[in-house]
Amino acid sequence: MSDLDQDLFQLAMSEEARPLMAAVKKHIAENVDPITEEFFRLQDEKTDRWSWHPRQLELLEGAKNKAKESGLWNFFLPESEIGSGLTNLDYAYIAVELGKSPLASESLNCSAPDTGNMEVLERVGTPEQKKKWLEPLLNGEIRSAYAMTEPDVPSSDAKNVRTSAVLDGDDWVINGEKFYISGAGDPRCKIMIVMVRTSPDAPPSKQQSQILVPIDTPGVEILGPMKVFGKDHAPHGHMHIRFNNVRVPKENILLGEGRGFEISQVRLGPGRIHHCMRSIGKAEKALELMVKRAATREAFGKPIAKLGGNLEIISRARIEINAMRLAVLQAARAMDVLGNKEARVYVSAVKAMVPEKVCLIIDQAIQMHGAAGISQWTPLADMYTDMRHLRFADGPDEVHHMVVGRAEVQKHGLW
Amino acid sequence: MSDLDQDLFQLAMSEEARPLMAAVKKHIAENVDPITEEFFRLQDEKTDRWSWHPRQLELLEGAKNKAKESGLWNFFLPESEIGSGLTNLDYAYIAVELGKSPLASESLNCSAPDTGNMEVLERVGTPEQKKKWLEPLLNGEIRSAYAMTEPDVPSSDAKNVRTSAVLDGDDWVINGEKFYISGAGDPRCKIMIVMVRTSPDAPPSKQQSQILVPIDTPGVEILGPMKVFGKDHAPHGHMHIRFNNVRVPKENILLGEGRGFEISQVRLGPGRIHHCMRSIGKAEKALELMVKRAATREAFGKPIAKLGGNLEIISRARIEINAMRLAVLQAARAMDVLGNKEARVYVSAVKAMVPEKVCLIIDQAIQMHGAAGISQWTPLADMYTDMRHLRFADGPDEVHHMVVGRAEVQKHGLW
Amino acid sequence: MSDLDQDLFQLAMSEEARPLMAAVKKHIAENVDPITEEFFRLQDEKTDRWSWHPRQLELLEGAKNKAKESGLWNFFLPESEIGSGLTNLDYAYIAVELGKSPLASESLNCSAPDTGNMEVLERVGTPEQKKKWLEPLLNGEIRSAYAMTEPDVPSSDAKNVRTSAVLDGDDWVINGEKFYISGAGDPRCKIMIVMVRTSPDAPPSKQQSQILVPIDTPGVEILGPMKVFGKDHAPHGHMHIRFNNVRVPKENILLGEGRGFEISQVRLGPGRIHHCMRSIGKAEKALELMVKRAATREAFGKPIAKLGGNLEIISRARIEINAMRLAVLQAARAMDVLGNKEARVYVSAVKAMVPEKVCLIIDQAIQMHGAAGISQWTPLADMYTDMRHLRFADGPDEVHHMVVGRAEVQKHGLW
Amino acid sequence: MSDLDQDLFQLAMSEEARPLMAAVKKHIAENVDPITEEFFRLQDEKTDRWSWHPRQLELLEGAKNKAKESGLWNFFLPESEIGSGLTNLDYAYIAVELGKSPLASESLNCSAPDTGNMEVLERVGTPEQKKKWLEPLLNGEIRSAYAMTEPDVPSSDAKNVRTSAVLDGDDWVINGEKFYISGAGDPRCKIMIVMVRTSPDAPPSKQQSQILVPIDTPGVEILGPMKVFGKDHAPHGHMHIRFNNVRVPKENILLGEGRGFEISQVRLGPGRIHHCMRSIGKAEKALELMVKRAATREAFGKPIAKLGGNLEIISRARIEINAMRLAVLQAARAMDVLGNKEARVYVSAVKAMVPEKVCLIIDQAIQMHGAAGISQWTPLADMYTDMRHLRFADGPDEVHHMVVGRAEVQKHGLW
Repeated sequence: MSDLDQDLFQLAMSEEARPLMAAVKKHIAENVDPITEEFFRLQDEKTDRWSWHPRQLELLEGAKNKAKESGLWNFFLPESEIGSGLTNLDYAYIAVELGKSPLASESLNCSAPDTGNMEVLERVGTPEQKKKWLEPLLNGEIRSAYAMTEPDVPSSDAKNVRTSAVLDGDDWVINGEKFYISGAGDPRCKIMIVMVRTSPDAPPSKQQSQILVPIDTPGVEILGPMKVFGKDHAPHGHMHIRFNNVRVPKENILLGEGRGFEISQVRLGPGRIHHCMRSIGKAEKALELMVKRAATREAFGKPIAKLGGNLEIISRARIEINAMRLAVLQAARAMDVLGNKEARVYVSAVKAMVPEKVCLIIDQAIQMHGAAGISQWTPLADMYTDMRHLRFADGPDEVHHMVVGRAEVQKHGLW
Repeated sequence: MSDLDQDLFQLAMSEEARPLMAAVKKHIAENVDPITEEFFRLQDEKTDRWSWHPRQLELLEGAKNKAKESGLWNFFLPESEIGSGLTNLDYAYIAVELGKSPLASESLNCSAPDTGNMEVLERVGTPEQKKKWLEPLLNGEIRSAYAMTEPDVPSSDAKNVRTSAVLDGDDWVINGEKFYISGAGDPRCKIMIVMVRTSPDAPPSKQQSQILVPIDTPGVEILGPMKVFGKDHAPHGHMHIRFNNVRVPKENILLGEGRGFEISQVRLGPGRIHHCMRSIGKAEKALELMVKRAATREAFGKPIAKLGGNLEIISRARIEINAMRLAVLQAARAMDVLGNKEARVYVSAVKAMVPEKVCLIIDQAIQMHGAAGISQWTPLADMYTDMRHLRFADGPDEVHHMVVGRAEVQKHGLW
Repeated sequence: MSDLDQDLFQLAMSEEARPLMAAVKKHIAENVDPITEEFFRLQDEKTDRWSWHPRQLELLEGAKNKAKESGLWNFFLPESEIGSGLTNLDYAYIAVELGKSPLASESLNCSAPDTGNMEVLERVGTPEQKKKWLEPLLNGEIRSAYAMTEPDVPSSDAKNVRTSAVLDGDDWVINGEKFYISGAGDPRCKIMIVMVRTSPDAPPSKQQSQILVPIDTPGVEILGPMKVFGKDHAPHGHMHIRFNNVRVPKENILLGEGRGFEISQVRLGPGRIHHCMRSIGKAEKALELMVKRAATREAFGKPIAKLGGNLEIISRARIEINAMRLAVLQAARAMDVLGNKEARVYVSAVKAMVPEKVCLIIDQAIQMHGAAGISQWTPLADMYTDMRHLRFADGPDEVHHMVVGRAEVQKHGLW
Repeated sequence: MSDLDQDLFQLAMSEEARPLMAAVKKHIAENVDPITEEFFRLQDEKTDRWSWHPRQLELLEGAKNKAKESGLWNFFLPESEIGSGLTNLDYAYIAVELGKSPLASESLNCSAPDTGNMEVLERVGTPEQKKKWLEPLLNGEIRSAYAMTEPDVPSSDAKNVRTSAVLDGDDWVINGEKFYISGAGDPRCKIMIVMVRTSPDAPPSKQQSQILVPIDTPGVEILGPMKVFGKDHAPHGHMHIRFNNVRVPKENILLGEGRGFEISQVRLGPGRIHHCMRSIGKAEKALELMVKRAATREAFGKPIAKLGGNLEIISRARIEINAMRLAVLQAARAMDVLGNKEARVYVSAVKAMVPEKVCLIIDQAIQMHGAAGISQWTPLADMYTDMRHLRFADGPDEVHHMVVGRAEVQKHGLW
């Protein structure tokens, strides 16, 4: 990760993608920002928090349709005939913008975990699987979930997964428990990709498989929502799910038995990078709020930006954001140039780096706001808890540091 | 704050108070811990979150009665004939225990903001004021609030308060806006002490007064709850209140016109110290959870306490907790020995030190738990957001650092 | 500093410069590394530490001649017919390599403060000044110093400079005191550029001038060496100099009276960037030493890289180095694209960021080595003290954070 | 380490010791401070840095005699008839004062490593050993060294020691290599206690012995001084020593074969505590310098204490120093109350805590001074490098964190 391959330093957006960037910004300003407040207000007014208010869906579909009409749709699939075929690098710039708005990603059909699921289906799905699940996902007609994390094991390491799938006749029979399955609360969520252990006797990285499980399959029991600092993020939700003898046809397996680990290599690189890109957008937003507060709030007769270490806090935030942005762009570029597998260390580096630092920046923006910073009057408290969650999602910081540290040692031919 | 007055180093509990400590622990174990889960479950089951479920009150009153019978009641008033007359130092030890349980403080009639309000009434109230408000507070029959913070000004500096009180005939007429008025949502809350500006032309520290305002006085408009990371802490609540021509009799003023700042000197020392003491208890709890998780959760074939820097994180938490405990005990001792006013720098020092460090320790406990750490399965997420709130309450960290820093410079006769 | 001008993201070396990079690495390996140990050993063996051992000069001139023959000479002047005309970006890559060796920079005639002085002379010197001083500097025949910092004022702000120059007939008469004048101890140092105050009544940024002062001018009194953590860095030295009625001809002024501040804008951008570039090289070196130690030293039966948080320390160092490298490259690019003046905030950002972080990385490398890390057995202790020095040179961190913070606030049209 | 044994919270100095504290301060002011500048200037003027200038010894002996006359002598031996029999707690207060002056400790015969060596001899020496070595040490007639650390192994764990001692007839024959043997350069150093491996086949903690080796024994080869950030601290020195078939009589062993580890338990507690105590004194000194600089140096038209985060830095330093002081006093108290062995975790806690934090405080004092902070014009650079050294001496921070972390886990009955 320290070689100086000059291809990895060409971090400018391609000429072709630049107009897209402008179009996305325009779309957010014209079609997304104006509906955001109403959309979330409706969420609080509903009696059933786990369904959608018809007006919510109307607003969202309106924005989606406008995006689709403008060709701002499915940006996330590099080297593919589907979507706009943007490189990871080009998409990175756009994702930063998406991170600044809580609805922008979905309005472009670019929200997690669908992007990862669509990428997996596109790369390894059979024609039937694609027809049945990829098409409606690409059209934004349904949503999906990715069921990997389990409560009882450190499942950031796929090898620990305990949910079992056993072949019984022409069916896989699945038993086990998953939690923090994001998006599985959404009534539009129709399909899950479930990481299971199919071959306990195979070598550790060949024991897992990934299987398509329609969410309405009998035996799929949603035990309830897991909360994030007390919030359930309904109706999206981070669900706690038990699989009780869930039966799906043999052909629902992806790529083949024992290839679950291999698929997650495909999937996780881009997914992690997308999170980091959006996090940069959030950091920019937090810094903007911090600066505006610091420059306008007065105490002891002057703007608080002139008090104590506040200006240095602002400076450090700007410096770190710029450096993180470059690091994330380089990791995206590495995926384009080296492939997802070779770029793995770059990806782990930004996954370990970005959420932790952005947490700190949001926290400092909170402090600069006084009690208002943790209230409902700014988005900062929500931004903080989401970002804090991200320090676990797709593997905790510690695991990614282990990847980077080990690569560094191995570079010297040691170990 | 660096003199070596040996009186400040005698930090052991008095012989007399030691049996109380054991009694409190016993009370918590026998009377509080067993009701805690049901108490909070009932909160979620109610339709009106802002009232009490009869069973909640029954549980709480039961615990209170048992405490009262055992003489574990009103510990917080040093040098007073009321309550047990514990010194600040002795109470500090007990408060650490109280911090480990969310109901323990109230069960002993020692919860904020009542403790501060009772102390103020006891020290400066007239016989009538004591009769009317202090007595039922001391008996645990009613609760109270303290209305100081305002949304538009940095009101950690009382001199900035803008809510006005104007004498009109025999009444004070109050107008203004306050927020984060903790406890004002509780139906049992009957009385508020409100910081107002009565004398805008007086010197800066003589402009404020504190006035008793019954919460049901016409014109007291509760605009709604302020949230803490999305939570409203109903029915206690942190309320946003508007005062619209609120009239209270002239004699509701405390101590006299223009003496509001003077009263807050009396009040804030102990209040801040109590928060810090309870925070030590929370840090102990977080460390205990961290250690148990680290020693029992396995990854890569060993307990995670043996992975990476986890053991060092545990060590650093223990080291910081022990040092903080000593610092808080010394600040309590300083109040006993030097008086609240002279001990002011010690108090600011621990207020600036403790919540920030305890936030970090809880955050590390969260990280050690993975996603479970931010879920409803551990108390850690709530502990974090409460502790984060404390970094603003009674003045943000920055203001307390200013007090300590300035005292340090002045000690050298400079400035 | 947060705009997304895509020109600022093209951070790859130019095609033309890439062969130079290889040539420089080869030169260091073949001509510099082999002489380094002897060169510094001779320093310790001399009786007069402040002169050169003839063999030292022989070694150094040998390496310089080889570099000159290969065209590896005077890389630092962008947009100039002199030297190789490398852009700041291209030079940045090379400077990283130079940072890894204590002699490499000088062997290519690219060492501070000569690079800055030569750039100033090239940009603003008269033909006579160029003939007399620039030519021998470009040829590596003499060396130079830059006298700005004064002991009694915070002279990172040029406006505070108190050394005065008064026109008396055809001479400037200079009086004042400077310290930490690096390189002024070298017997080969023949010329100083001295920042003086010539016009105390002009507006603050028009009061200063820069004047050429041959070091052997009567009245230039070298009071002795300033030390860096006890080391004098003889014979280079960081000298403490008093100017006692030092007379130089009127025409020794650079650019004109009152233009001293303007010149330092020209100078300091590249100078600061070069320091940061070399610092990246030092960080790479420290990380390499850290990794090798961690992988080979055993304790408790395993390599210490597997103990405690060491692997995470390695990971964090790698992550920070990569991000810093990108930030420095971008600042260099900004100077190429936007000009030194417009790029000022980028430059301050990396000057505030890099030395502080590299200090930490070196410190961690030291810790990983145990006592050997602070001994003469590794270069780490020297690397640390030099890097710590850099946190003051060309303005302390705090001043650069002020520049970045203020720019961030102004971007929002505030202040 | 978290129990609340109230004996551990009685941290005031005993009544008896208080007059001593005043006497020590008076002694330093009257007898030590006035000779310090001349003493160290003479060091730089000598031709042979490794001998003493007669005037240096004259100054030092003068101060020692005055101390001895006033009964300020050998404070460090608790529960002993020798010296003043101060408790560890009482001595802690005094040691803080000693830390502020580089000559004070020796003037009271309380300097490392003699204190540790004398304590070992007093506790476990035979009458002959005491007569021969303890007496002249107690009288301040000779000095001593403690040879434990080896270059090739992590010898903070005594079990790793490789220097061997083999019984041959009536002699131990010692072979091996030690480094950073502090004080072994001093011509007055006559005796070393050497940690050796005598019984490689015994259980790990029974393999080591400690042996008295007069420094002039044939075969003791001083290879040269180890440096600390380039400094050799001559003539005290941190020597690199090879033992080449060094023969000492059988009876030079301390306590008995295989009991070396046991002795180091006795020794290291107090030694580590003394270092921490003195470090508090150094931190106080650094803070004092920081404050004076901040309050008197001006930039941008005001004292730098009013610029940026400087006042908060001062506040944080004061807060940390006070907390550290309490923690060190508690560790000293723990040794008095629980005994050195039981107090082990307390001792590791402060050893892991104090030098790291004091390094930071000194570093911030340096930054507040600008370049003067790393120059010879303040003691800060020397204070920093000495304190940085301390993060390795008697076990690196990491090892002490391991002790504390492990104890914390074990407290819960886990592991």
